[in-house]
Amino acid sequence: MTNVRVAGVGLTHFGEHPERTTRDLFAEAGTTALDDAGIDRDAVEGVYYGNFMGEVAEHQGHQGPLAAEALGLDVPATRFESACASSGVAVREAVKNVRNGEADVLLVGGAERMTNLPTSETTEGLAIAADDLYEVRAGLTFPGAYALMADAYFQEFGGSREDLAHVAVKNHANAVGNEHAQYQKEISVEDALDSPTVAEPLHLFDACPITDGASALVLVSEDYAEEHGLDASVAVTGTGQGGDKMALQDRESLCRTPAAGDAADEALGEAGLDTGDIDVAEVHDCFTIAEVLALEGMGFYESGEAIAAARNGETTRDGHLPVNLSGGLKAKGHPVGATGGSQLVELTKLLRGDHHNSDAVPDAGVGLAHNAGGTVASVTVHVLEEVEA
Amino acid sequence: MTNVRVAGVGLTHFGEHPERTTRDLFAEAGTTALDDAGIDRDAVEGVYYGNFMGEVAEHQGHQGPLAAEALGLDVPATRFESACASSGVAVREAVKNVRNGEADVLLVGGAERMTNLPTSETTEGLAIAADDLYEVRAGLTFPGAYALMADAYFQEFGGSREDLAHVAVKNHANAVGNEHAQYQKEISVEDALDSPTVAEPLHLFDACPITDGASALVLVSEDYAEEHGLDASVAVTGTGQGGDKMALQDRESLCRTPAAGDAADEALGEAGLDTGDIDVAEVHDCFTIAEVLALEGMGFYESGEAIAAARNGETTRDGHLPVNLSGGLKAKGHPVGATGGSQLVELTKLLRGDHHNSDAVPDAGVGLAHNAGGTVASVTVHVLEEVEA
Repeated sequence: MTNVRVAGVGLTHFGEHPERTTRDLFAEAGTTALDDAGIDRDAVEGVYYGNFMGEVAEHQGHQGPLAAEALGLDVPATRFESACASSGVAVREAVKNVRNGEADVLLVGGAERMTNLPTSETTEGLAIAADDLYEVRAGLTFPGAYALMADAYFQEFGGSREDLAHVAVKNHANAVGNEHAQYQKEISVEDALDSPTVAEPLHLFDACPITDGASALVLVSEDYAEEHGLDASVAVTGTGQGGDKMALQDRESLCRTPAAGDAADEALGEAGLDTGDIDVAEVHDCFTIAEVLALEGMGFYESGEAIAAARNGETTRDGHLPVNLSGGLKAKGHPVGATGGSQLVELTKLLRGDHHNSDAVPDAGVGLAHNAGGTVASVTVHVLEEVEA
Repeated sequence: MTNVRVAGVGLTHFGEHPERTTRDLFAEAGTTALDDAGIDRDAVEGVYYGNFMGEVAEHQGHQGPLAAEALGLDVPATRFESACASSGVAVREAVKNVRNGEADVLLVGGAERMTNLPTSETTEGLAIAADDLYEVRAGLTFPGAYALMADAYFQEFGGSREDLAHVAVKNHANAVGNEHAQYQKEISVEDALDSPTVAEPLHLFDACPITDGASALVLVSEDYAEEHGLDASVAVTGTGQGGDKMALQDRESLCRTPAAGDAADEALGEAGLDTGDIDVAEVHDCFTIAEVLALEGMGFYESGEAIAAARNGETTRDGHLPVNLSGGLKAKGHPVGATGGSQLVELTKLLRGDHHNSDAVPDAGVGLAHNAGGTVASVTVHVLEEVEA
């Protein structure tokens, strides 16, 4: 087994690009990643691609071959769909292929086109990631699902809308200067508290936006990086995946995400690390409460104790564990199929030192990415480390 | 790297089950496979699941966790979508995980629910596997696409509708006695020739039906099989994948499928075999012409020479290379996401000797499965061999 290196990364702007297809978005991100890696297209052996709602948004399934073709690659290509963790699972399988010698160079990532639909249709399309029989037909969509989780959290552990507002404020502050981010502006706690209700207790600024965009990474084997003299100073040293029951009603707790713990334990175990070793994290904050649940689920905090982490400055850019220095899904945006890959792009830049927030973590050597699908029925965790190039 | 063993297999009936969900179908196939393997649910480490059109047919994406949950498994689960090759790619990634020691026991397969929609909507849903921008908007659906391929074949190499009719006649004859098959009855060449036009030159009996169903296999490492004394006498000794441009218009030839050759070369190369070593094959005959193109693409025949294979009795049950002893997609049925997995189920039974057509190939030791997506823009090939249990 070999360490897997990140040789190059690429992102489109995350935002409203309703006129662009997913293949077009992915071609841009992939081209950027290949250029960043300094690798010719001929070297790429396969594409591992995440997309969630192409069938609904573009009348387009079978996007693997389209993603490869748009990027000028004549190689096998596979589409993964695990709701909002679609590119997390794509990255995970690609990592395992490279570390086991199945391939030396793979292009991974994902893309999503969402703003070409009316918002109501996008929300309806997103609901396809929930249990149609037992949740969606009862009227549940994801804002409602996460509102139930937030309510359950408040009832069991306490906490307030103001605590959650600090998560949004933090992530918006982190997005300032991120040229790829959908919202590159700060908000105040009052802005968040005063924003319109989406599903009580969650308001507009507790929710990530609807976003178009793509992410891509070039993963290479350690041997390939050395043989070709690549400047690949970031390694993926751990990958983990967890699964849970799809419908909230079937869970033991509405405010715990044990699958995230399973994924984190596996990824950290592979890396030979624990949560205390992580310098910087990108976690799946589709709603503010999701960031809280992620940090607790993975063991960074005990249950009930992460609610004040942002408020207390523990997860802000100056805290001991900066979380979502990209801006997170909340402010950077959430093009569903691209998000998992984009988290690794951000971590790679933070570890290389060419991120817009690199000055917040100049000595960061270890990063963790947490990408969740649905109400965390699917989740991947990856550990990235700075190594000798 | 270890050989991967098939410890157990399961299928639902392939046919019209409009009232059953994909999760329900998959739970039946998976339970059968686990019972066949004699393995407890607790031993399963992950689910690799293929589904193509759940979003359209059931308003249900994110089916990985649902598939696991329905089967009573509390493990990570990933959904693969590569059109009609969805479970082919799921099997492939699972095989690589097991042979590289990433897991010892994985449950793989797929499911599709299709007959709950009106046929026109199913055809429209299937078209999502073609290029929406350059094919579907111009009016192309899959019967038309394969009709273009058949026309191009006839123009370049000759051949006739009657040659293709023999493929349908052969596969229907093979399905007799297959309790899982949608159509367990013989047809005549005249029946095929006289059937209604679908898209000239293809008629109704050149096309596979619309089908509900599921397939499942339990894959285990060689070490696990030995340690647990499993009766697992079939090994997956090769896996390959190919990719091509999505739209027919971008291909150099309309009547060649080079991606199938890439996949076959890879799978056979891993197994250390060539086409002459294959005793029995299951190939993707979504239309009769597809079986011809598959046999040529993989190198069993030169281009232009497989058209008369069925007519000449070379691929019938008494021929030197029996093809689609299951009945194929044509007569057994084609529940899209289940098909790739179901091909390996059939081969496993043929190699074990408990297939309804085992008497046709009593000495078969090597089988090959070819599963294609779209107009063969995605394709997997697997090689299975009988080994010491």
